[in-house]
Amino acid sequence: MNQENSASYPKYKQIIDFMKEKIARGEWPIGSKIPSQRKLASMFDVNRSTVITALEELTADGLIEGKMGKGTIVINNTWTLLATTPPDWNVHVKSGMHRPSQAMVQDINESESNSNLIQLSKGELSPDIFPKDKMKYAMEKVAKNMEVLGYEEPKGYFPLRKELSAYMKTIKIESSPDSILIVSGALQALQLISIGLLQKNSSVLLEKPSYLYSLHVFQSAGMKLKGLSMDEEGIKVTAIKRADPQEGQAILYTNPCFHNPTGTLMSQKRRYDLLKECEEHQLPIIEDDLYRELWLNKQPPSPLKALDKNGHVLYVSSLSKTLSPGLRIGWIVGPEPVIERLADIKMQTDYGSSSLSQRVAAEWFENGLYQLHMETVRTELRTRRKVMLNALETYAEDIATWTNPEGGFFIWVHIQPSISMKSLYSRALKRGILLNSGSIYAQETGSYLRLSYAYASLPDIDRSIKILAELIRELQV
Amino acid sequence: MNQENSASYPKYKQIIDFMKEKIARGEWPIGSKIPSQRKLASMFDVNRSTVITALEELTADGLIEGKMGKGTIVINNTWTLLATTPPDWNVHVKSGMHRPSQAMVQDINESESNSNLIQLSKGELSPDIFPKDKMKYAMEKVAKNMEVLGYEEPKGYFPLRKELSAYMKTIKIESSPDSILIVSGALQALQLISIGLLQKNSSVLLEKPSYLYSLHVFQSAGMKLKGLSMDEEGIKVTAIKRADPQEGQAILYTNPCFHNPTGTLMSQKRRYDLLKECEEHQLPIIEDDLYRELWLNKQPPSPLKALDKNGHVLYVSSLSKTLSPGLRIGWIVGPEPVIERLADIKMQTDYGSSSLSQRVAAEWFENGLYQLHMETVRTELRTRRKVMLNALETYAEDIATWTNPEGGFFIWVHIQPSISMKSLYSRALKRGILLNSGSIYAQETGSYLRLSYAYASLPDIDRSIKILAELIRELQV
Ligand SMILES: Cc1ncc(COP(=O)(O)O)c(C=O)c1O
Ligand SMILES: Cc1ncc(COP(=O)(O)O)c(C=O)c1O
Repeated sequence: MNQENSASYPKYKQIIDFMKEKIARGEWPIGSKIPSQRKLASMFDVNRSTVITALEELTADGLIEGKMGKGTIVINNTWTLLATTPPDWNVHVKSGMHRPSQAMVQDINESESNSNLIQLSKGELSPDIFPKDKMKYAMEKVAKNMEVLGYEEPKGYFPLRKELSAYMKTIKIESSPDSILIVSGALQALQLISIGLLQKNSSVLLEKPSYLYSLHVFQSAGMKLKGLSMDEEGIKVTAIKRADPQEGQAILYTNPCFHNPTGTLMSQKRRYDLLKECEEHQLPIIEDDLYRELWLNKQPPSPLKALDKNGHVLYVSSLSKTLSPGLRIGWIVGPEPVIERLADIKMQTDYGSSSLSQRVAAEWFENGLYQLHMETVRTELRTRRKVMLNALETYAEDIATWTNPEGGFFIWVHIQPSISMKSLYSRALKRGILLNSGSIYAQETGSYLRLSYAYASLPDIDRSIKILAELIRELQV
Repeated sequence: MNQENSASYPKYKQIIDFMKEKIARGEWPIGSKIPSQRKLASMFDVNRSTVITALEELTADGLIEGKMGKGTIVINNTWTLLATTPPDWNVHVKSGMHRPSQAMVQDINESESNSNLIQLSKGELSPDIFPKDKMKYAMEKVAKNMEVLGYEEPKGYFPLRKELSAYMKTIKIESSPDSILIVSGALQALQLISIGLLQKNSSVLLEKPSYLYSLHVFQSAGMKLKGLSMDEEGIKVTAIKRADPQEGQAILYTNPCFHNPTGTLMSQKRRYDLLKECEEHQLPIIEDDLYRELWLNKQPPSPLKALDKNGHVLYVSSLSKTLSPGLRIGWIVGPEPVIERLADIKMQTDYGSSSLSQRVAAEWFENGLYQLHMETVRTELRTRRKVMLNALETYAEDIATWTNPEGGFFIWVHIQPSISMKSLYSRALKRGILLNSGSIYAQETGSYLRLSYAYASLPDIDRSIKILAELIRELQV
């Protein structure tokens, strides 16, 4: 609870820290009255409005309460205090974050549950595409064959691992069920890798921009993100040479199929070159391949993992983008000792993923339901992509350029001349449209937007692009 | 990857570290031949058997391989190496652990999936008690009303939180759905608290013995466990005064209902005294109340959380012990800012728990199914407890004393005169019986056993206690 003394540390935060410390130490016990606003103002040599800002924050945190005729009283300590004084690592993360993006991500998370908004931000299939009937069928089959739902084996429900092992063969990856770990989504995969395999101060090399910039997962475990530049074939291999870190471990994270947020598909040649370069630099690879099945033109090149002879690649995927994020089912494929270590950490974290979800997921693979469903999804997404591209051509040709994705959910839009993305974001929100600014995915960048055609309805896609174009034009003036 | 130079660090480990470093640095690339056994033996001034031990471990880890006529070749690096050279925090945990218990816990975890063994170790309801029909019914209802399974709200599926809020009222806890966070089991609750609320070097005060000693969750996050002695009413309050840590944060973890492993039920008076003492010492409390509904004589006293006026207590529970561990559904109740912070961490960890599990769990509460099921469970457990206590009286009266639990799963057996628990464990295993030695739950302790009457069949309970008594007698000679 050390206070930073640097001049840049805002005064109202200093007041908050001071008061938290008093409460934490028990000097101001529950029920006690805190000094008056006037007194606090003179103690810190600030005007009363600053004191009020501090008191408001402490009130919102549930630590103090203004009581009529009694002044301001301490009403809580302990847990509430811990929650509002997070441990070091988190302070570290927060202070490392770009403030505006941070606030924007939180905002978007909240707004995403508002079903009145047109969600151009959502990296999730539209409810219209959700395969209710097939899911019902899978659940009923699991119900019919209901067995005991006990704690599962550390690596996960064996029949699901067997199905996944067979499925992986279809994308050219040879993996026995023993080299597969079931996890609760790809995010948990990254989380387990970060705490289970990497040392603090490791570097994570990754595409720039990247989905990972919108998360805390590696930074929270004390790692640094190092963005590598991309071209239309994916990460530039030359960028790795330059980034070769002199100290500490490093790994490379890549999202080679229909990259989030740019939609880029890594070419076959680039995959070979990248793997070779990484092997030379002893740079292990996390291949996040969540969007692979969402190809819309033709099947993508084989995964890096399929080319990998030396256990260099940890392969991560999940059902979140293709079937349902609510199942929370993902998997990691890698060398057995690595999978065993991660399984151990997973057991220490949550004793395994939901048995129900695992059984239902196995059902999806068992009778080819999953591949059938993927055909529907691809058909639907092709239409959506077309509608969004058409709308962009019709309304935005003179104010922006964009990618023409070969699959996945996203169109990456470059607005030119550039505008204030914050203004665009809030004006769009006022018009009922939720946007993801490119700044969420990289710490510095121009005027970029990640548009998702996966979620909103077709008329909404058309309508919202039209509005967006208007707003951009206003801001470009 | 620093090597310890202390004399106590075994030679074969030094060899392993040396070789890992060579591989990690790329000095010994994949495909290269490592020095001969003779050469290694003379380099480290050891005899060849020590070198062989090291090579065997590296082979098992998948880093090297003996090839006929080619010597020993490096076959892997990167991920495998990371997995076998875990980050600092874990080394720290491992080195802090009691070796024998550690090995024993792993052994037990493996043996628990062997269905030929009589599992006196398992803290889990017998498959015979699993409510197949009711679970089927709940699943089919969820299937029938199938909606989209998207990412859930950060705190979890609202209808489940509403049901839990109503359920909590029945045990005298007032909590709005907003002050409840759904998690993937109680273990995840502890995990989130450890990484989200506590500073490194915090102390966790807890019962001694305690279930927590069998886990890494707090130690992995850099915390120390400080055991407090117990009597038949629970944690001794005087022990808290003595343990009052001078530096760093501290919290108290308690498992007041049918404590794992001793079965102790904390008395009402002790609950008041404990809460008061903790409030005085500004010691926040985690109340792990997983076993509450498994009362067998009469309803237990209200939770500490029900007495808590100041947000001092974080309440943790789950469906693992009462219904099904495979659902992976637990919950945390606490002050809203705390719940919000934990929800944020949960989102960063795995984007929420399985929607399927959350919906099925809600179904269990919605129509009173859960309470009906609890009556069946209690009836079944009463019989099981009786059979085990009878068996102990019949076969073991002269060689041990034990508790008579008022609920939960466990009988805590004190073997007198004391014997080698390791020998008992392995002899029992040879006879087909899996045991949990008391040493798993505390770092030093006499000859204690945690026997579970929840899992094995009635005839197996009787038969295995008879065999156990024989084995103990042999060892006491
Ligand atoms: C590239 C990428 N990786 C991982 C995830 C996490 O997905 P989940 O944990 O739902 O599987 C996402 C979700 O947006 C993503 O876009
Ligand atoms: C006291 C106690 N707390 C927590 C747990 C973890 O249970 P779960 O994560 O399955 O809810 C257990 C399981 O054995 C336990 O005995």
